[in-house]
Amino acid sequence: MSPKKDRLSIAALGGVHEIGKNMYIVQYNDDLIVIDCGSKFPDETLPGIDVIIPDISYLLENQGLIRGLIVTHGHEDHIGAIPYVIKQLNMPIYATRLTLGLIRAKLKEHGLLGSTKLHEIDSNSTLVLGAIPIRFFSTNHSIPDCLGIAFHTPQGVVVHTGDFKFDLTPVNAQYADIHKMAEIGKNGVLALLSESTNAERPGFTPSERIVGEHIEEAFKKAEGKIFLATFASNVHRVQQVIDAAEKTDRKLILLGRSMINVVEIASSLGYLRMPHGMLLEPDDCNRYAPHELVILCTGSQGEPMAALARLASGTHRQIYVAPGDTVILASSPIPGNERNVGRIVDNLFERKAKVIYGSGTVTGMHVSGHASQEELKLMLTLMKPKYFIPIHGEYRMLHQHRQLAEAVGVEPSRIFIVNNGDVVDIIGSTARQERKIQNGNTLVDGLGIGDVGQIVLRDRKVLSEDGILILVVSIAKSDGKVISGPDVISRGFVYVRESEGLMEEVQRIALTTITRLQEANTTQMNEYKQTLKDTIGKFLFTHTKRRPMIIPIMIQI
Amino acid sequence: MSPKKDRLSIAALGGVHEIGKNMYIVQYNDDLIVIDCGSKFPDETLPGIDVIIPDISYLLENQGLIRGLIVTHGHEDHIGAIPYVIKQLNMPIYATRLTLGLIRAKLKEHGLLGSTKLHEIDSNSTLVLGAIPIRFFSTNHSIPDCLGIAFHTPQGVVVHTGDFKFDLTPVNAQYADIHKMAEIGKNGVLALLSESTNAERPGFTPSERIVGEHIEEAFKKAEGKIFLATFASNVHRVQQVIDAAEKTDRKLILLGRSMINVVEIASSLGYLRMPHGMLLEPDDCNRYAPHELVILCTGSQGEPMAALARLASGTHRQIYVAPGDTVILASSPIPGNERNVGRIVDNLFERKAKVIYGSGTVTGMHVSGHASQEELKLMLTLMKPKYFIPIHGEYRMLHQHRQLAEAVGVEPSRIFIVNNGDVVDIIGSTARQERKIQNGNTLVDGLGIGDVGQIVLRDRKVLSEDGILILVVSIAKSDGKVISGPDVISRGFVYVRESEGLMEEVQRIALTTITRLQEANTTQMNEYKQTLKDTIGKFLFTHTKRRPMIIPIMIQI
Repeated sequence: MSPKKDRLSIAALGGVHEIGKNMYIVQYNDDLIVIDCGSKFPDETLPGIDVIIPDISYLLENQGLIRGLIVTHGHEDHIGAIPYVIKQLNMPIYATRLTLGLIRAKLKEHGLLGSTKLHEIDSNSTLVLGAIPIRFFSTNHSIPDCLGIAFHTPQGVVVHTGDFKFDLTPVNAQYADIHKMAEIGKNGVLALLSESTNAERPGFTPSERIVGEHIEEAFKKAEGKIFLATFASNVHRVQQVIDAAEKTDRKLILLGRSMINVVEIASSLGYLRMPHGMLLEPDDCNRYAPHELVILCTGSQGEPMAALARLASGTHRQIYVAPGDTVILASSPIPGNERNVGRIVDNLFERKAKVIYGSGTVTGMHVSGHASQEELKLMLTLMKPKYFIPIHGEYRMLHQHRQLAEAVGVEPSRIFIVNNGDVVDIIGSTARQERKIQNGNTLVDGLGIGDVGQIVLRDRKVLSEDGILILVVSIAKSDGKVISGPDVISRGFVYVRESEGLMEEVQRIALTTITRLQEANTTQMNEYKQTLKDTIGKFLFTHTKRRPMIIPIMIQI
Repeated sequence: MSPKKDRLSIAALGGVHEIGKNMYIVQYNDDLIVIDCGSKFPDETLPGIDVIIPDISYLLENQGLIRGLIVTHGHEDHIGAIPYVIKQLNMPIYATRLTLGLIRAKLKEHGLLGSTKLHEIDSNSTLVLGAIPIRFFSTNHSIPDCLGIAFHTPQGVVVHTGDFKFDLTPVNAQYADIHKMAEIGKNGVLALLSESTNAERPGFTPSERIVGEHIEEAFKKAEGKIFLATFASNVHRVQQVIDAAEKTDRKLILLGRSMINVVEIASSLGYLRMPHGMLLEPDDCNRYAPHELVILCTGSQGEPMAALARLASGTHRQIYVAPGDTVILASSPIPGNERNVGRIVDNLFERKAKVIYGSGTVTGMHVSGHASQEELKLMLTLMKPKYFIPIHGEYRMLHQHRQLAEAVGVEPSRIFIVNNGDVVDIIGSTARQERKIQNGNTLVDGLGIGDVGQIVLRDRKVLSEDGILILVVSIAKSDGKVISGPDVISRGFVYVRESEGLMEEVQRIALTTITRLQEANTTQMNEYKQTLKDTIGKFLFTHTKRRPMIIPIMIQI
């Protein structure tokens, strides 16, 4: 193989120009490696959709080249698509112990555990996939056991940071491999893919340890029960809650399926240190005084079905919030969730609880897991990449990250802001962004993967705003005379009992329209339907300023 | 009339346990005065609804007692319901000049201007409505000409603050009547109703003037065109944009219907001072160099149809954002709007504009119009009320405001946190909260006021998530045999072309079900329909994990 023909290609199938759904590929000639396989949650423009995953057409077409999937860490936006993807495309998965534990739980739920090859790695592993030797480095983030990846391709080193921050005083001594990063950078990095989530945020993200200090302080002050809600996957924070409970002689109760799952997985794999006898079952609650209890639960983002929402509304089966209890929301509301969080805080205040809520910056009860601008500049400085591709973020974040890269001396023409599907090809020593590969959102709705498309979504939108009006008429095949109907059925349009006159008017118009068409010797059913749709649609809009979906059903008998 | 029988009643018909839809009543014996008549916007739980207004049943029942509507200021959450309410309940309206100007525009749009009595007042007016002398005091807020109200009932003074902050260096010298407030408080306030919007925020809200300083600084630095988006009703900010444009020798173009309307109303009434010849039409844009132009526009909250969104996406007919232009979002995104604002910023960065965006606290381009905790304490201290009712806010804000009141010495038992419809009756010198009057959300959808209820909304929700499946069968009256169908029509459920097998299966199940019922000699059409619904619903859920609305249509011929 002549070195001139060697091609190194880098692309995102998800994760740029968006938050979530992370999936990247690094391909060197005929060896293709996939990085992460994440999902994201739909917004209000995708009614009824459960989850969004990357379109993997490109991977299916190049199945023979895929050497494996490396997963940087165990968050949903990096592992959430795995069961859906693995069903269509079986590939070996490489990840650290905790990440694998979380992936295993997912695969088990989908009945895929037996058929998937899982390989445990750690930051000291060296892996060779196809022709590509791969090394790793530990990073800090809001879940333990995170990896950055260095692909030592014959053409040069490609570094993918995963999600990271620099926490110089990490919980459980999970230090980042800063010396290894320096070494990789010193030896020369051809291309760096670095995460951009907090690229708009000045400064340096505080250490998770300060959250522990605030938790301990609040626990010491609290008199009744303590409820603390946080992301289940934030194992370090869970550890700090355990530590504070131990120091204040409180027992621990877990509420919420994901909290119970994660604590179980993390404990069994050695990522959590829990004193013997500390963990109680919810039903044990009544055997202890309020000041002897900490309830650690899910729902810190106001999720309406999670434990905290049920506690706040008083609908939890086993445990209730009493006057004087302390409730801590160890989170900052993610944009879009403020209303739900606010409703919970309202309910908790109505129960006369003391509530610690709001921005983590103010309460000290939450810090981000992502690098702020100074840390991003530190990563760029350590790696000194020839080419830079900001990843993980909306366009404005990638844009801000580019400006940070320029500020620390990366040549502007060597920075590529790519969209999903854009390929950066490095041939010889020159990088070009010219090609595009298939990419997109695959929508998961119930058991359907990708069967809900634009037409279905557009219909759902119309239906949700103005409802539907169904008109049923049966006419004789022989002479076209109306045999029954027109009958009108509406749903989600107007309250029918109050709109009888309107419905009668619709029937009258339908009948007139049909008669008129018959007199014009119209025989095409489609013409009847279209005319009825138009005429009734116009009438309804004039009288209600609403545009329900109109479905004329003509039955020829 | 014996003073023992005198009753003073205070209630909210909208505005507590919520943000927006403000409407309060003060009633002394047979004189009822309404304060504000606002609307609010629906959230995602109310699909298709345009606007929410208060349920005014209580006012309609007591029409004979109503002496008038006093409006504190011209924001939508205080005037938005006026046209809908006035259509059903004509009452004289009292408001300041600018507020009346904005109300007049609304009434005109609804063809109600001729039939409504409008009375201009100012902070020096004294009014007697029924047996109640009324005085006013100026306050600062994010719109000029705001009033607080003092009702001098024979039983004591009731003060309603309206929205306010204390801006000690206001734009256009619109000072708050702090001495008058002190005098009212010194003479004794029986009950204070004070706004709570920012009761969660520590400190003192900065003066609007600092925004002017930041605007001027940014204008001086800018090289190309300048776009600045802000709330149209913030006349003081608009004035500061005009001032900065004048200082930097730029002309002004207005984009967005509400911006054009408000500037026209405010200018004609003397609330805006614009240099002659400064205002251009959008089409004049090409006759000037970029550095000679400021475009002041709507859409600072990311509203998808507003001017800024169209500029960002490049779909504005007359003006475009060029590389190097400066775009200032003089706003802080309101919770729920971050995604839309983010999308606009992404688009502007893709156009290579310089964008100033994010929290107003960081950019200096926005300050709140509402009192923070120290100002709320100042108002409470000035008024020294016997009874205190926090208004304008979600429960958590009312709760925080109560704690502030307790901190400055209001007796806890004399603080009433009321919900909409709760009445505080003051008889003799004792206040009690025991009665409730009718209240609620009246939903406006197109031309319908209040005709969309829970059933319609529930249907819209089901339709939006999983769509609809319509099954049409015609059967013979004589022997119950199927004449045509079953035919299946679906919308918003699955993409039909890919689900033919599923639809055929539904037809098969329907036919089997009908046959089975016929064999059991079932004659009730409702039983056929219910059984078809259940059977097909169960089948579809098993095979798709979706629950579309199922409408069986049985036609007997």
